[in-house]
Amino acid sequence: MANTNSYCVIMGGGIGSRFWPISRKTLPKQFLDFFGTGRSLLQQTFDRFNKIIPAENIFVVTNDMYAGLVADQLPELSENQILLEPTRRNTAPCIAWASYHIKALNPNANIVVAPSDHLILREEEFLIAVENGFNFVADSGNMLTLGIKPNRPETGYGYIQIDGQIDDNLYKVKTFTEKPELEIAKLFLESGEFYWNSGIFIWNVNTILAAFEKLLPELVEKLQVGHHVYGTDKEKEFINHYFPEFPNISIDIGIIEKADNVYVALGDFGWADLGTWSSLYDLSEKDENQNVVLRCESLLYDCKENVITLPQDKLVVIQGLEGYLVAESDNVLLICKKEEEHAIRKFVNDTQLRLGGNYI
Amino acid sequence: MANTNSYCVIMGGGIGSRFWPISRKTLPKQFLDFFGTGRSLLQQTFDRFNKIIPAENIFVVTNDMYAGLVADQLPELSENQILLEPTRRNTAPCIAWASYHIKALNPNANIVVAPSDHLILREEEFLIAVENGFNFVADSGNMLTLGIKPNRPETGYGYIQIDGQIDDNLYKVKTFTEKPELEIAKLFLESGEFYWNSGIFIWNVNTILAAFEKLLPELVEKLQVGHHVYGTDKEKEFINHYFPEFPNISIDIGIIEKADNVYVALGDFGWADLGTWSSLYDLSEKDENQNVVLRCESLLYDCKENVITLPQDKLVVIQGLEGYLVAESDNVLLICKKEEEHAIRKFVNDTQLRLGGNYI
Repeated sequence: MANTNSYCVIMGGGIGSRFWPISRKTLPKQFLDFFGTGRSLLQQTFDRFNKIIPAENIFVVTNDMYAGLVADQLPELSENQILLEPTRRNTAPCIAWASYHIKALNPNANIVVAPSDHLILREEEFLIAVENGFNFVADSGNMLTLGIKPNRPETGYGYIQIDGQIDDNLYKVKTFTEKPELEIAKLFLESGEFYWNSGIFIWNVNTILAAFEKLLPELVEKLQVGHHVYGTDKEKEFINHYFPEFPNISIDIGIIEKADNVYVALGDFGWADLGTWSSLYDLSEKDENQNVVLRCESLLYDCKENVITLPQDKLVVIQGLEGYLVAESDNVLLICKKEEEHAIRKFVNDTQLRLGGNYI
Repeated sequence: MANTNSYCVIMGGGIGSRFWPISRKTLPKQFLDFFGTGRSLLQQTFDRFNKIIPAENIFVVTNDMYAGLVADQLPELSENQILLEPTRRNTAPCIAWASYHIKALNPNANIVVAPSDHLILREEEFLIAVENGFNFVADSGNMLTLGIKPNRPETGYGYIQIDGQIDDNLYKVKTFTEKPELEIAKLFLESGEFYWNSGIFIWNVNTILAAFEKLLPELVEKLQVGHHVYGTDKEKEFINHYFPEFPNISIDIGIIEKADNVYVALGDFGWADLGTWSSLYDLSEKDENQNVVLRCESLLYDCKENVITLPQDKLVVIQGLEGYLVAESDNVLLICKKEEEHAIRKFVNDTQLRLGGNYI
């Protein structure tokens, strides 16, 4: 059976501070059900991959403090499918460790790595792309990322410039550009050469480990110390001890942008990075005045283009607001202009400094 | 002892809908402690009068549904000092009934009648005025209202025009004017002849009952049916049966504006009718940007001239609001421009229609 070699690593350790106060340190956004579907973003991600990948081949890497949340939300996972980071590092150490772990279980694994907070509206097309991707990476020694046809000059995403075409929708990658200025993003859109980087990667375990050896040798050196522990009951102790020494670096900067064997499969999956309130606003159903109201009851008067979310049993009555975010969760209410949402990190920091962690 | 003839009637049956959602039908504003003093407005009113009037001579008239709240907040009152209206009428029936009740206990009572939702900052001057008032009304057959020197052209208050001077700060009343237009209010202020009507009245029980007989005979006729029950254990049954038939009319319109024996004692008591959010805003301590924050924790950025109140343990973070009211209580959050607060009644009605009484 083809898919016994197919593995999935879901990254679910972020704290989602850009979605504060709905996303809280003790309950970050990947564990929330923003749209009232009955399943959290993490659960939706698991459900999606589980259609083509056996549950026992799906791993979640998260922070120690979310162990209970992951286990509760995904009872399909056994304890050793939840990889717990003792401290917060970036995506490169997370993916490298998961790769070592999976290689110990299946030395020929093909792996799709995905964040836990993305929205995919056209699941069928997406899963076909992932399966085609597995076939492409299985024996080629190449790495693959999924690229999304952009529909607007979004400045919050990374872009991939395509190079030579290999096959239908399959291209060699020329360059990566992180969040561009608006003018640049507009040029990207016009050129037709640039695609959004979904942050979803597919590769064979040996390919990615070879890339780590070549491009992040200092990380591999530390991981190699534990070469005998992966997949054993000594792994957790080893990771708890050594993980804090791993470098804090992203997979994009550490590997993807430097490797010369990266390809991109282009698709239109109804994909969105649910990274900001504005993206949530864009993705949500709106009333006749372009207001988005999630979960709560509401009466709006002279209101336009707001995004409003309070707990389900609450009523919010608003008069005379335009372009604001109104979000309440537990003991925090946030009201700010949508266009100022970049300041939420500052609000969180100020809150931490002035009032402590009880509100974070 | 002089003050065994001194009685007080506190009117505490309003639902305070202009202060929704903080003031709720099940817990109206008079039962709330807006400023965190540790005593509700009703308790403050009781405490104030109790300095010059024995507790057993103080009566609270309220609606049946608030019987428990009054008893809880004022354990000093015995059951027969809480007069319970079975339905909502205006102030004339309330005061007429209380007058009959008190006359049965003391046929020579002097009574001060006061709302339960006013703020009096200079208590000593106020109590002196009340005591002087008792002396003035005891044998003169005159009625007295307390008038406040206005400091701004407030359009939310009633005004009293003074006529001939009788004594220091004591004048005959010429006219009453309900909430004037701003231009009129400005003229009133300039003229020096107009004073705010505090709605606090002082009279001998026989004087007010004579006025009711003359000016509201249809009400007196109904109240006289029960002349033998006042002060007895049959009073409640009688009131429950007949009160719904009493006319819905205010003491101002029914009596004060028509009587020819009304005088006004002028004073400066730091008085305010806590009738609207704007009045609460005006009365409250402000930060350097003229924001008023009551009870909750707050972080404000680019905010000016707002009034903000959430429960004590909550944090509100607001960016970019000017001149708004942000008020949350229990299951309702209200955000509206301060200048639009007159629409709160509409919000309440719409809420009742669309979502039912659970949010009122």
